[in-house]
Amino acid sequence: MIINFASDNAAGVHPKVIEKLSEVNEGAVPSYGNDPYTREAVEIFKKMFGSHAEIFFVYNGTGANTAALTALTERYGMILTAHAAHITEDECGAPVIFTGAPIQNARSAPGKLTPADLTPFMSLKGDEHKSQPTTVSVSQATETGEVYAAKELRAISEYCKSNDLLLHIDGARLANAAVRLGCDIREVVYGADILCFGGTKNGLMGAEALVALNPAVAAKMPYIRKKSMQLASKMRYLSAQFLAILENDLWLSNAEHANKMTDMLRKKIEGLPGIKILYPADANMLFIEMPNRLFDELIKSFYFYPQSRNAERTTARIMTSWQTTEEEIQMFQKTIQVNL
Amino acid sequence: MIINFASDNAAGVHPKVIEKLSEVNEGAVPSYGNDPYTREAVEIFKKMFGSHAEIFFVYNGTGANTAALTALTERYGMILTAHAAHITEDECGAPVIFTGAPIQNARSAPGKLTPADLTPFMSLKGDEHKSQPTTVSVSQATETGEVYAAKELRAISEYCKSNDLLLHIDGARLANAAVRLGCDIREVVYGADILCFGGTKNGLMGAEALVALNPAVAAKMPYIRKKSMQLASKMRYLSAQFLAILENDLWLSNAEHANKMTDMLRKKIEGLPGIKILYPADANMLFIEMPNRLFDELIKSFYFYPQSRNAERTTARIMTSWQTTEEEIQMFQKTIQVNL
Amino acid sequence: MIINFASDNAAGVHPKVIEKLSEVNEGAVPSYGNDPYTREAVEIFKKMFGSHAEIFFVYNGTGANTAALTALTERYGMILTAHAAHITEDECGAPVIFTGAPIQNARSAPGKLTPADLTPFMSLKGDEHKSQPTTVSVSQATETGEVYAAKELRAISEYCKSNDLLLHIDGARLANAAVRLGCDIREVVYGADILCFGGTKNGLMGAEALVALNPAVAAKMPYIRKKSMQLASKMRYLSAQFLAILENDLWLSNAEHANKMTDMLRKKIEGLPGIKILYPADANMLFIEMPNRLFDELIKSFYFYPQSRNAERTTARIMTSWQTTEEEIQMFQKTIQVNL
Amino acid sequence: MIINFASDNAAGVHPKVIEKLSEVNEGAVPSYGNDPYTREAVEIFKKMFGSHAEIFFVYNGTGANTAALTALTERYGMILTAHAAHITEDECGAPVIFTGAPIQNARSAPGKLTPADLTPFMSLKGDEHKSQPTTVSVSQATETGEVYAAKELRAISEYCKSNDLLLHIDGARLANAAVRLGCDIREVVYGADILCFGGTKNGLMGAEALVALNPAVAAKMPYIRKKSMQLASKMRYLSAQFLAILENDLWLSNAEHANKMTDMLRKKIEGLPGIKILYPADANMLFIEMPNRLFDELIKSFYFYPQSRNAERTTARIMTSWQTTEEEIQMFQKTIQVNL
Repeated sequence: MIINFASDNAAGVHPKVIEKLSEVNEGAVPSYGNDPYTREAVEIFKKMFGSHAEIFFVYNGTGANTAALTALTERYGMILTAHAAHITEDECGAPVIFTGAPIQNARSAPGKLTPADLTPFMSLKGDEHKSQPTTVSVSQATETGEVYAAKELRAISEYCKSNDLLLHIDGARLANAAVRLGCDIREVVYGADILCFGGTKNGLMGAEALVALNPAVAAKMPYIRKKSMQLASKMRYLSAQFLAILENDLWLSNAEHANKMTDMLRKKIEGLPGIKILYPADANMLFIEMPNRLFDELIKSFYFYPQSRNAERTTARIMTSWQTTEEEIQMFQKTIQVNL
Repeated sequence: MIINFASDNAAGVHPKVIEKLSEVNEGAVPSYGNDPYTREAVEIFKKMFGSHAEIFFVYNGTGANTAALTALTERYGMILTAHAAHITEDECGAPVIFTGAPIQNARSAPGKLTPADLTPFMSLKGDEHKSQPTTVSVSQATETGEVYAAKELRAISEYCKSNDLLLHIDGARLANAAVRLGCDIREVVYGADILCFGGTKNGLMGAEALVALNPAVAAKMPYIRKKSMQLASKMRYLSAQFLAILENDLWLSNAEHANKMTDMLRKKIEGLPGIKILYPADANMLFIEMPNRLFDELIKSFYFYPQSRNAERTTARIMTSWQTTEEEIQMFQKTIQVNL
Repeated sequence: MIINFASDNAAGVHPKVIEKLSEVNEGAVPSYGNDPYTREAVEIFKKMFGSHAEIFFVYNGTGANTAALTALTERYGMILTAHAAHITEDECGAPVIFTGAPIQNARSAPGKLTPADLTPFMSLKGDEHKSQPTTVSVSQATETGEVYAAKELRAISEYCKSNDLLLHIDGARLANAAVRLGCDIREVVYGADILCFGGTKNGLMGAEALVALNPAVAAKMPYIRKKSMQLASKMRYLSAQFLAILENDLWLSNAEHANKMTDMLRKKIEGLPGIKILYPADANMLFIEMPNRLFDELIKSFYFYPQSRNAERTTARIMTSWQTTEEEIQMFQKTIQVNL
Repeated sequence: MIINFASDNAAGVHPKVIEKLSEVNEGAVPSYGNDPYTREAVEIFKKMFGSHAEIFFVYNGTGANTAALTALTERYGMILTAHAAHITEDECGAPVIFTGAPIQNARSAPGKLTPADLTPFMSLKGDEHKSQPTTVSVSQATETGEVYAAKELRAISEYCKSNDLLLHIDGARLANAAVRLGCDIREVVYGADILCFGGTKNGLMGAEALVALNPAVAAKMPYIRKKSMQLASKMRYLSAQFLAILENDLWLSNAEHANKMTDMLRKKIEGLPGIKILYPADANMLFIEMPNRLFDELIKSFYFYPQSRNAERTTARIMTSWQTTEEEIQMFQKTIQVNL
């Protein structure tokens, strides 16, 4: 077994999820979501997001993002996103082939998207030579571990409404954001036309929930989910995973633990000589710049990724999960201190 | 609980699969398939299909077919398939948007594809106005429950080689075909450039294995799997499902049972007055034409689908699975006899 | 020079068109359609089709059809068309890659589409596994030279409205249909959401006009025209071609002549022994079944295409154009009679 | 009539082109390029580029670029280009929907692409999460009026060969580049797998020639040209345009004149107070930064475009063409001097 700080998707599945999968595994039920477990999970989501919300379980984050963006984006559209979003960097162009639309980084530097980042693109509107800005996509929490405050999201959402843009929220780590903000979940995704409620990175085996809040978008989703190859025949086994974490707010306690582990690590190493923390660590990840020598020692004992490296220093991402233990954090910290 | 003759994907998951999922759920392992369970499952497949085979686990059949066809088909290509194939009928156009190529039914009537069905399309070759036939797709077993004999498949495959066509085999029910043919699995998929080794319909929770036998096709697959949204981050939980059924040949015994249940039902009702069996029932499904009155009675107690209906008679599909019991078959038979 | 009965696009350009191209070739004008000639041509079309019509000149028929179908069809849509439509047979899949939607022949036999042909597909609606019928495409005149009567078109159009389908009319030979029907042009395209007003086959050098009558469709067209590579920078030279044929109703007299030549040929050879006319010859083409020996003689002196051939007989298409002469018709007839 | 410095595509058509169009307009010829004029034009191009070159006439630059990039790029590919290339800025995403691949600006600043710009992207190779760099696209001359020296192009081309990348050259203004370099045309496009030989901006009515130098690429082009809606039925009228400018090297003298007019303007205004020339003016365009007050005067009398504007200064693009006169240059210069 490895000490994993590489990703929350290298972690295992929470035991309650395995239990629930066994529990629903009784005889036959109708396929493709016409089963009681799916109905139950959908009802819970509707209580969280409102009765107008329509819920579509899918396999993974790339599928969730691609299906959602397809429902939001005309074929001549343009998807505006923050620098370094998952949809531009890590999905091998899946949303591009499916929507036929380019994805444009609206910020040239890392960080949270703001209305000011979007403004320059509004001049493209009405110019037939240009892909038309139709869609904005933000990650909550972001790929650099930052969380949009409710009012930041509100500003983006109002800008979108005023400018006839539809808003997608990639919530692969929505639970980590929700824990940090501590407010009603509807505030955490304020203004989204469709959002992904992540599960896989929060202790599930492999399941994400698309929550469509805009009725016109919701109406297209059954077909788009199927066409984007994300409709599970044995749907009950996706739904059951959500049942497991929605009961007793396990989705929140899992994320709270992951965030706490990152907090703990941050506090332990912040201010150590030669160590630099790069972004506000709002969620469950820490970007640490360190001397190459230290990195070379750490990588011998821990599983994590360098992000960039020059002659002297390496930047690495440390990610914690529902499964990370205090002992693992302490071991990491000690290895740092011994090698400083 | 329902008595299910609707589909093998309404059945549950085999207990050995749930067990294996628990077993691999120990701590963290590298994501995206760089884990020991995936390596082990890949090795078993390589032993079955040859060391040159490259294996790619994916979520579902639509994803498997779409990814495979994308790897085989030029953007100006045409995919030739049998009447009523899954890729034309039941995938909401997923392979069409992804490949950009039309799918052409090469037979106007149900049944197995033959080289003679393909011949008329060869005259399109070299005509710049026409989509170019590049790809042939057959299902083994077919959607009507027939199985290609090894020599039938060999004839298709040789035709493909001679005519510069690549061959895809949709093996959502490959196990059922393998059991029927009783020959080496390589004969069951003879000549395929890429094939789908189905799992979901054979007792898994949700996993299919793409087996690429053509090296040029295999080289493209990692990127195409990702771009078609079929790359699981927590891959071990797909691989584990296959480990569960590959050990002790559970994949074969599951399918053998399903086929046997269909055989039993066929024998019991064949020849009954008013009952007509439509296709050779080589695998785990039976197409039964019956009086409407009988259908209307059966549908009260059993979960299955009508295929077509006129003023007097209904045709319905009865599908059995690894989970179907002899008692269920007997109950179905009795309900028929009581209502004849 | 050849005696051409192969196609109306093998014919030359009407001298008035060349003249007009010279006439507009004076100095610089704004590009992409912001020029006085384009404005003038657009105005004439608006007078014909109504002030709500929006006009988009494009290069060719494949581009016109593809752009129009893209504006009408959701990514999960299905395009229903008649057997042997140009969009399925002769465009190398252009509408397929662009819309991502399959094109479905709604008739299994040649001939005009009727509401009854569409009905079976309506049961697909609402089934998430199936491409959703969203679009109907008919050719006026058809590829077999038939013309929809106003009331036939009205029946289709009303069916579309009742079933939430959008209607595209491929009018590559709209002029030939208009001449045959002799009614107001708006009746000839009754109910179309968008239509192509063909030019190239009617004496132009290469230009088609898309006429969008549905405002929601029209709003998308500027971007779709550009994205489908059909926006001409030196637009005045497309517009000028239309100016040339719209003045003095040259578009009608050109088509009238072409139709008349087909009529003349039909009358001369109908009833000759061994000669069979296959379809009603409403427009400018004739499908003739004849003995192989006769075909083999004719092909020595005339440029035209066989459609099919068996051991005894060949079916060939004879197409006339604005440029066909009575002498050419007589020569063809004589060659037939000599060789009967 | 306007004094046009807006674009070389606002200019008219050279009289020799109109003449040639009339000349080829004699009776019928086979369509889709099977005519003597097309054969003749193709032969001339083969003499220029080598007998292995395959030539495909298309309608416009967007079509040429999209078709070419489609032939070069796998569905999971990535197209690397310079900042501000036409394919990213001005084609409404046409290459994106057609290839399914993202287009990536490899330079963050304007200017010519260098191997060093490409290097950072090579680390994406082999990572299944990333679109794979397969294609490089450069413009010769660039959209900022710069020309790649033969050795600069050779460096790119060698880098491409070493890194398994295919090279596209967008030669919408290839003639202007050829005139500037004064070397063999093969040096001007050194290493291209496919290139566009522009016509429309150099006095044609609307025609571009794709020249495929890589045989594997050439083999795909007939189908891709058709599928990208760029195959003209009345092909002779595209071919004739090229015949007109290839005879007597009119393509070079047209471009030479356009370049000379830009040179003249540059020399006249360079060094004037408040005037700044932004890029090396290697071809037929000048980017001038000037006081807003001056711009506001100029725009009253001349047709040209601002590129950007702040509180004090405006940057504008001045483009000359085969049709620009010395008098027009002088008028522009005088208006500047009067208003300085």
